[in-house]
Amino acid sequence: MVGSLNEECGIYGIYGNGLTDLPSLVYYGLFALQHRGQESSGIAATDGGDVRCHKAMGLVSEVYTKDAISSLGNPTIAIGHNRYSTTGSSTIDNAQPLVSHYSKGSLAICHNGNLTNCISLRTKLENEGAIFRTTVDSEVIAQLIARERNRSESIETAVKKVMEQIQGGYAILVMSRQKLIAVRDPYGLKPLVMGKIGDAIVFASESCALQATGATLIRDVKPGEMVIVSRDGIRSEMYKTGARSAKCVFEYIYFARPDSVIDGISVYESRLRAGAILAKDHPVDADCVIGVPESGIDAAMGYSKESGIPYVKGFVKNGYVGRTFIKPSQELRAQAVRIKLNPIESAVAGKRVIMIDDSIVRGTTIANLVNMLRQAGAVEVHVRISSPPFLHPCYYGTDVPSEDRLIASHHSIEEIRDMIGADSLGYLNVSRLDEMLGEPGHNYCDACFTGDYPNIDTGIDLMNEDAASLEK
Amino acid sequence: MVGSLNEECGIYGIYGNGLTDLPSLVYYGLFALQHRGQESSGIAATDGGDVRCHKAMGLVSEVYTKDAISSLGNPTIAIGHNRYSTTGSSTIDNAQPLVSHYSKGSLAICHNGNLTNCISLRTKLENEGAIFRTTVDSEVIAQLIARERNRSESIETAVKKVMEQIQGGYAILVMSRQKLIAVRDPYGLKPLVMGKIGDAIVFASESCALQATGATLIRDVKPGEMVIVSRDGIRSEMYKTGARSAKCVFEYIYFARPDSVIDGISVYESRLRAGAILAKDHPVDADCVIGVPESGIDAAMGYSKESGIPYVKGFVKNGYVGRTFIKPSQELRAQAVRIKLNPIESAVAGKRVIMIDDSIVRGTTIANLVNMLRQAGAVEVHVRISSPPFLHPCYYGTDVPSEDRLIASHHSIEEIRDMIGADSLGYLNVSRLDEMLGEPGHNYCDACFTGDYPNIDTGIDLMNEDAASLEK
Amino acid sequence: MVGSLNEECGIYGIYGNGLTDLPSLVYYGLFALQHRGQESSGIAATDGGDVRCHKAMGLVSEVYTKDAISSLGNPTIAIGHNRYSTTGSSTIDNAQPLVSHYSKGSLAICHNGNLTNCISLRTKLENEGAIFRTTVDSEVIAQLIARERNRSESIETAVKKVMEQIQGGYAILVMSRQKLIAVRDPYGLKPLVMGKIGDAIVFASESCALQATGATLIRDVKPGEMVIVSRDGIRSEMYKTGARSAKCVFEYIYFARPDSVIDGISVYESRLRAGAILAKDHPVDADCVIGVPESGIDAAMGYSKESGIPYVKGFVKNGYVGRTFIKPSQELRAQAVRIKLNPIESAVAGKRVIMIDDSIVRGTTIANLVNMLRQAGAVEVHVRISSPPFLHPCYYGTDVPSEDRLIASHHSIEEIRDMIGADSLGYLNVSRLDEMLGEPGHNYCDACFTGDYPNIDTGIDLMNEDAASLEK
Amino acid sequence: MVGSLNEECGIYGIYGNGLTDLPSLVYYGLFALQHRGQESSGIAATDGGDVRCHKAMGLVSEVYTKDAISSLGNPTIAIGHNRYSTTGSSTIDNAQPLVSHYSKGSLAICHNGNLTNCISLRTKLENEGAIFRTTVDSEVIAQLIARERNRSESIETAVKKVMEQIQGGYAILVMSRQKLIAVRDPYGLKPLVMGKIGDAIVFASESCALQATGATLIRDVKPGEMVIVSRDGIRSEMYKTGARSAKCVFEYIYFARPDSVIDGISVYESRLRAGAILAKDHPVDADCVIGVPESGIDAAMGYSKESGIPYVKGFVKNGYVGRTFIKPSQELRAQAVRIKLNPIESAVAGKRVIMIDDSIVRGTTIANLVNMLRQAGAVEVHVRISSPPFLHPCYYGTDVPSEDRLIASHHSIEEIRDMIGADSLGYLNVSRLDEMLGEPGHNYCDACFTGDYPNIDTGIDLMNEDAASLEK
Repeated sequence: MVGSLNEECGIYGIYGNGLTDLPSLVYYGLFALQHRGQESSGIAATDGGDVRCHKAMGLVSEVYTKDAISSLGNPTIAIGHNRYSTTGSSTIDNAQPLVSHYSKGSLAICHNGNLTNCISLRTKLENEGAIFRTTVDSEVIAQLIARERNRSESIETAVKKVMEQIQGGYAILVMSRQKLIAVRDPYGLKPLVMGKIGDAIVFASESCALQATGATLIRDVKPGEMVIVSRDGIRSEMYKTGARSAKCVFEYIYFARPDSVIDGISVYESRLRAGAILAKDHPVDADCVIGVPESGIDAAMGYSKESGIPYVKGFVKNGYVGRTFIKPSQELRAQAVRIKLNPIESAVAGKRVIMIDDSIVRGTTIANLVNMLRQAGAVEVHVRISSPPFLHPCYYGTDVPSEDRLIASHHSIEEIRDMIGADSLGYLNVSRLDEMLGEPGHNYCDACFTGDYPNIDTGIDLMNEDAASLEK
Repeated sequence: MVGSLNEECGIYGIYGNGLTDLPSLVYYGLFALQHRGQESSGIAATDGGDVRCHKAMGLVSEVYTKDAISSLGNPTIAIGHNRYSTTGSSTIDNAQPLVSHYSKGSLAICHNGNLTNCISLRTKLENEGAIFRTTVDSEVIAQLIARERNRSESIETAVKKVMEQIQGGYAILVMSRQKLIAVRDPYGLKPLVMGKIGDAIVFASESCALQATGATLIRDVKPGEMVIVSRDGIRSEMYKTGARSAKCVFEYIYFARPDSVIDGISVYESRLRAGAILAKDHPVDADCVIGVPESGIDAAMGYSKESGIPYVKGFVKNGYVGRTFIKPSQELRAQAVRIKLNPIESAVAGKRVIMIDDSIVRGTTIANLVNMLRQAGAVEVHVRISSPPFLHPCYYGTDVPSEDRLIASHHSIEEIRDMIGADSLGYLNVSRLDEMLGEPGHNYCDACFTGDYPNIDTGIDLMNEDAASLEK
Repeated sequence: MVGSLNEECGIYGIYGNGLTDLPSLVYYGLFALQHRGQESSGIAATDGGDVRCHKAMGLVSEVYTKDAISSLGNPTIAIGHNRYSTTGSSTIDNAQPLVSHYSKGSLAICHNGNLTNCISLRTKLENEGAIFRTTVDSEVIAQLIARERNRSESIETAVKKVMEQIQGGYAILVMSRQKLIAVRDPYGLKPLVMGKIGDAIVFASESCALQATGATLIRDVKPGEMVIVSRDGIRSEMYKTGARSAKCVFEYIYFARPDSVIDGISVYESRLRAGAILAKDHPVDADCVIGVPESGIDAAMGYSKESGIPYVKGFVKNGYVGRTFIKPSQELRAQAVRIKLNPIESAVAGKRVIMIDDSIVRGTTIANLVNMLRQAGAVEVHVRISSPPFLHPCYYGTDVPSEDRLIASHHSIEEIRDMIGADSLGYLNVSRLDEMLGEPGHNYCDACFTGDYPNIDTGIDLMNEDAASLEK
Repeated sequence: MVGSLNEECGIYGIYGNGLTDLPSLVYYGLFALQHRGQESSGIAATDGGDVRCHKAMGLVSEVYTKDAISSLGNPTIAIGHNRYSTTGSSTIDNAQPLVSHYSKGSLAICHNGNLTNCISLRTKLENEGAIFRTTVDSEVIAQLIARERNRSESIETAVKKVMEQIQGGYAILVMSRQKLIAVRDPYGLKPLVMGKIGDAIVFASESCALQATGATLIRDVKPGEMVIVSRDGIRSEMYKTGARSAKCVFEYIYFARPDSVIDGISVYESRLRAGAILAKDHPVDADCVIGVPESGIDAAMGYSKESGIPYVKGFVKNGYVGRTFIKPSQELRAQAVRIKLNPIESAVAGKRVIMIDDSIVRGTTIANLVNMLRQAGAVEVHVRISSPPFLHPCYYGTDVPSEDRLIASHHSIEEIRDMIGADSLGYLNVSRLDEMLGEPGHNYCDACFTGDYPNIDTGIDLMNEDAASLEK
């Protein structure tokens, strides 16, 4: 899939325990998590006194200069955040970490995810007189923590009480002057791992960020777990147990980096298995298998291995697209796709091609790709999708849109096949997702395919559409 | 005086009543108020829906591009702010307007001044669970308005209730989606004028900003007055009366632009009178009178006129110093003053010179100027200061520092004369300030000279020194 | 190979023949050629009058804004250039296109390549009184053209005379107010293709840039050919024939984009064949084949196909590295490689791995990769290189360094194997290069492997080392 | 006068003789010369090896960062330049210093002035094969020096030979790796002073730059003099003598800073005398005298002193206009003048006002000012101009335009008075210029008033209008 869906955020935090140059480590950690958010990036740091913060719009490599890193001093704790906006508008005000000053000092928050009861919480706070500077639900969390802190004996008690009030999928880092607290939602919808660099303790959205910073994986933070790191060491507390485990299956299909391992399952291997399942369930006689870079490539290799049909490189992707890339005008729109992706004609000309992509949202991009392959000489184009059809929006912080913009909500698979101009079309069957994850007993959230939201009983008051209304 | 004291802010707001291109008008209004704050600038605007805001560090001419002005759309109300930090650190977070989202929508605030009970108000709010994103007292006002708004029938009622709680000197613009509200503190410490451009209503810190935008002066907003502009027209309400009038006398001496008229008194004429009084009270036989640019020049002309001693240009000021000017190194510090100010040797060589400046804070700058004049050949240098000696800090938003940094708090005038190397030294006598203002009955605040703070009975809980502690 | 060798330049030019928005087309053409130079980019354009030029340091997506593109007007001819410095220092002065004003008007030059007789030509010009504003050899070409133009009847005659004087490998675009001239060196060392968009004529370093701009390939410009496009149509002239064809074989191995076709040979297919040859010549019993992204991946797929050993993804590359990426400090150097490349542990743990890369320069990077694979659990690491050992510097504009920095000049293959920590090491045999290109009779330059420089008889007076001395 | 005429350039150079931190000194020297050019600024420096250069568009305070200054190393010689374009377009290519590489190494040139035989020299060079990268005549000088250097034994011999070829008004600094050479044209049209800081030798356009850098004035460089500073000390050579001295009288009237002394005459005193002469020659019964900031103020003080009519401040100027100031739209054009200059109503209301300005070019600005004064309540406005009417263009590097754009070329004084809406109008009589300079015997160039060009015999081939044609 080429840039249609976007993960919301990547977070990275470190409690130094004597280790120095924490801002640089957070920088490289965020750099490894760049795929989770390209809109803005920020780092907050404390040496027990001031909380300093640097954040700006843009890629990690654009946001930070050596001076910016130096301006964060030599902290004892630091947390960072890459943002892709799912709620809230694209302004620097909404960039994280959010630093707040309150009765007990200062705290900084990094948040990946979405609160499903955000609007009711926010309304309640506003009715009590709270003001908001941003349109992101992370600020709701900060407000709640500040209020609870006034009646709690410690920051972790306050955080725990807030976790009992919020609903949704989230991974949160809270930094006070003395403590680093990591929390994962009770369903485990959002990933969060814990690692170490010597005595220093690290948290990150994905394990690839541990490796980029020389950290070794300790374990995943558990759903419903709060881990508190302070001068007293590491302490874990399960603030909520018993919830059905519901990690996001789409992290494996698309969001996460293939070199990450989430809850013990290799993202790369999942994708290979998805391809193999497609080969078994939707076989077709063809000359080669190609993947749509980057996320379709691993599934394509899995399809090839299972089917015996050779895997070839079908497209070259131009990876130099940055934030300031000038979009093609209407007249050049026809070539627009070839600017980012270009087929290798010698690889596909005269061939019956199986093209694997991870998902279809509106169908326009994939129709362009099918057309490009035919222009490059492909005699047949068979599309295989390494996920089931999107039928429902996601309320947990990924930007799967509302149903009226999902092609599969309104069209049969045969209609979609026709619309994208493919010779055949096969999706991964939703019943095969556990096989994709490799462990039949594994629980996961597949609500965007099934509508089976893990906390549907609680009511959902934040539709993606509503987020915009907050800005008004 | 060369850059030692700084005014805190300039504000400009407009309710369009059909007029278009309000952001440009605010831009030129802020440009005319640049002397009141060079740290950051911002404009917030609403067309009845979204509040859009653009703000950044730097001068007005640096902060805004055509694109930035365009991004504010075609609003019906717009307010703007130039900041010079007196409380709060120099970061973009502290730049104004402050835009807040709360139960009844969004509001933007521009604030010139200082709350003297800021810390107690902030502590109270924090104890109730409020969080702060900035270290400026303007955010305290925003929080209070949001709280009061929940129990008030209108935004103006909420603002009025908040004005009853806050103490200090201030001029405030509050913009909601439908209304523009202007408030001036009960003592009139901070200036605020009202004007019009056709049907549009304008508020500005000084009348020079009206002229720069083609507006005509209606009148000064009165101390303790709240003016509400909405689709229902203009409504005035005196939310507090009976307070002693106490406009800041230092606006006339130094802060305001000479072409402004504040509360009916021309700033330029005040300065001429200050010079004339000095000539009467501290006469000396000399060959010429010179002024330290810019603020000493008018008083020098007044001294010349009264004494008959010719006024000449003593110094040339290099006005190209911008935000990014590189400060001279220690080795070049000796020339540092001549980089910004250079004496005209032919004007002072062999002369007995009377040099007029507006004030002395620490004395180091004026000592350099006296020394420069002697190097340029002046045979005598008589210093006259168009204000009384600073003896007390200001708690209302100007950065007259605490007493330990005020030379006159620790030294006699004779000692100061000796320290700055002058042949004679004369200050404006504090009893002559009403003559300077031209109307004997006029009330004003001269607390920085006398310690007679207008609301001293209420207690002052925000010392300038404490502001820094908030940042910790 | 990870960022060790760099191509020098990419060029793109268009003669509109009525087509509009040429600057945008050059923009997308340069964007497609970004891999050939990331240091600076520039576009020059003429509408028959002024030559306008915009150039700056940075990536294509950084250098151009919409305003910059607009500032080029609506030209009839436009040429552009991406630079990677091989000679000359990294300053904006050295960025291309080079615009010169001379007796007959203005001309702009874009140049990919290196003159081997640059120093003697430059010295001669200087001795005749010429001054140089840059340290790039492109300016020598401009000076020569200007001189010849004075005694020639046309710009193409002048260009032709200059081509008879210069030696080396080059592809050059010359734009006068009325004409666009494309030249390729007599050996064909540098690639250059010709295409069309309707009536417009396009030249580009690689065919991928044609596809990105909706152009169709006409043919490669021939070695020793000059193509002149003007209002009189297209005219071709062979200014030098009979030279041995010697296209750069390393374009196929590493430089060019795999979707390009150079002189009729698909780059992608060449790399597949290189892998297959390695499998035949250096077989080894192993569990999987991996490629070092990006250029080793295609050869790895070729190796896999020939050997039957499964191809898997061994590394994930972080493609977000931009110009302003902060390099890791000494302490973090150990992780530095994992920041850009990270192994997929599940793919290689417990496996005997064959790792394919395109070349080895100094050996340090590949040693890190081998070490990373072992840490990730690989039990054996067999390295295969899809090119012969580098033994000699390149004088034609690629930055293969001098021999003292080439590991293969000083060490046997067995020694290199030991130094990089591999279990086995195999290079592509130099005798197999023609098989790699797919056509035995094909001539090419392999001087960096063999020392057999195509124009060695003429003497080479520009060593890469000498370039630096010009800057002194 | 408000921004209508602009000086072309300011130059500053230093030969260290052991002094360190030369780039900072040049920085402060250029800062003091900012009034002579605001378009671009640059510094070139050498430590005997590389010539390093930093230049960019913008004010001195914008162009240089600490990093930029550091990038110039610790040189033994450094020269700098502020540019205001009189010939050549406004692009970074045309910014100075111009650094050239030629047969004998590198040289950098800073040039203030205009060559009157530039086109014929340039054509000759182009016909010999020279190419130009810029449209400024400074590059002609560089080309000539490089050519002469090949047949000369030393750089100073080459410079001398070039000076014999060029015509016009100029002050030039030439820096080779070992020498700093300063040259002033034979007529002394352009100012150039020499000073010292300890053993270091400094050259600057005006003496105010010496004072800003702690240098003491040695003397003015003489017309037709070349001063060579090297390790062998200071050597002076008169390369041309006997020319009529013809320093630019407009430097005294407008261009130079009032604290500068040029050829022994104080700029400030000249302006006072101009005012006094106007009072004698064009007396009028009035209540006050005001000056148009900045350059009209000194003459206004002189008028006041001579006439006994009080000098008051009539206008406040907003000095914060920077390069990026957004110009008012057509609708706001009426207020445009008040944005930059605003009258002090209390000073002029009900008064008969004498307003002094330095010159009138097209008359539109002064008409606006007269109108503003009337709106502010002035009952009479008498305009006095401290220079004679402009009747002829300047060919020596100031942008007095061609005759068709000079109001006085086409209208009588009475007509101009009527057009600008003044009650009376008086110009300084051209016969009084020597009295203005204070020394009757002084020779000067007043060609813009008289058409008496000092080197009219030589022919003038560069009209200002022709400069544009070079760009084509």
